[in-house]
Amino acid sequence: MRTRFILIQTSHAGNVGGAARAMKVMGFDDLVLVAPRWPNVLRKDETIQRASGANDVLAKARIVETLDEALEGVSHLCATAMTPRDFGPPTRAPREHFAQFLAGTAAPDAVQPEGVAFLFGSERFGMRNEDVYRCHACLSIPTSEGFGSLNLAAAVQLIAYDWRQALGGFALPATTPQRPAADAAAVAGMLGHLEQALVAVDFLDPAAPKKLMPRLNALFNRAQPTPEEIHILRGVAKAMLQTAERAKR
Amino acid sequence: MRTRFILIQTSHAGNVGGAARAMKVMGFDDLVLVAPRWPNVLRKDETIQRASGANDVLAKARIVETLDEALEGVSHLCATAMTPRDFGPPTRAPREHFAQFLAGTAAPDAVQPEGVAFLFGSERFGMRNEDVYRCHACLSIPTSEGFGSLNLAAAVQLIAYDWRQALGGFALPATTPQRPAADAAAVAGMLGHLEQALVAVDFLDPAAPKKLMPRLNALFNRAQPTPEEIHILRGVAKAMLQTAERAKR
Repeated sequence: MRTRFILIQTSHAGNVGGAARAMKVMGFDDLVLVAPRWPNVLRKDETIQRASGANDVLAKARIVETLDEALEGVSHLCATAMTPRDFGPPTRAPREHFAQFLAGTAAPDAVQPEGVAFLFGSERFGMRNEDVYRCHACLSIPTSEGFGSLNLAAAVQLIAYDWRQALGGFALPATTPQRPAADAAAVAGMLGHLEQALVAVDFLDPAAPKKLMPRLNALFNRAQPTPEEIHILRGVAKAMLQTAERAKR
Repeated sequence: MRTRFILIQTSHAGNVGGAARAMKVMGFDDLVLVAPRWPNVLRKDETIQRASGANDVLAKARIVETLDEALEGVSHLCATAMTPRDFGPPTRAPREHFAQFLAGTAAPDAVQPEGVAFLFGSERFGMRNEDVYRCHACLSIPTSEGFGSLNLAAAVQLIAYDWRQALGGFALPATTPQRPAADAAAVAGMLGHLEQALVAVDFLDPAAPKKLMPRLNALFNRAQPTPEEIHILRGVAKAMLQTAERAKR
């Protein structure tokens, strides 16, 4: 689905660069700036530095004078605001809203959105009421009661992340190979081997074993050892037994 | 649950400030810096500027020389890394890992974690293998295949957000008041009123009504008008009728 990020009257060049980077890591590249403080903000050093490689997003970005000029091709508008208003679109947490919005478009005969835009107000004043009123929802990121001051680029990052996840998310790059679990017989064999070794090094008294072996069993059950790890532990037990043997001489 | 953010060999003061702010908006305040590039980073102008009010997090933050000194009181360590390793803890998406981890601690007789720490490597080199190896999981934020370059403070923001959400999340501040839906009789009454008005202004031809009224009915059904909005629409119909009456004179 077409996804646009619209920054309204942004003051800090660094935030424009940070927003471009935040969008790009989540696979979005449609950025529109409405009346930014610096008309040359897309070419400022600080912008480019904070974009850190998201130069294509900056190159594609448009600067317009009014919000109206930023809205073609998008049918669902989400304001972002920290302070809820008495009047206006419903205030929702992003994750909840995205799930609900996408569920609502799922029926084949539902009205299909043409695209979604996320609107972000200026760093100092947030969004104007008249801009919020034209939106279908007002997204509020749930933050600490005592400190809701999200950085603008951080807010873009969170919204871009939640929206990307709602759209199905990206796969993780190839991860650590799956580890097979050793079977219970292998664990029991290792524990028997270890028990002999613990007796040999005079840690375990066979006459008063207390609960040492069941405790170790519980520990290794939680650890879910692999066959390779069982092999290592048996090697340790063997070395302990050999050392104890040498110590007798 | 105790939650600590550990930044290892961080280069940029702005990122330390940004991380402090990102933590604080999600209600976390335990920050440890391991061997940062600038020993005075907590007092640098750029740090304080980017922290933007999260000064208490900076004031509480500790600087230590080695990772070992950062780990007291936390039992579950999560590395963060963009590049998966052949060996080491399992690589997981944060949201998935947090759900699984918390589910695992839910049984009353499960081993209870003492606290959780999130480890972030340096901006240029990420985490060293030996630091990743001591962790219980390696979190990888799912990003675009072509551009996975997350800013450090942005990564802290996303992890802090997902972890806070996994812990139950914050409530949104008081939102827009709930809107009652007008009942179907009220909608039908309004549509009847509107129909008269549309005839009066010569938009609707009663001899050839086509599907105008069913179309408007569908539109208003989707809009789910409130009683107040029905009142407004009836006011519009009334004004149309009165104007049409005057036009006849």
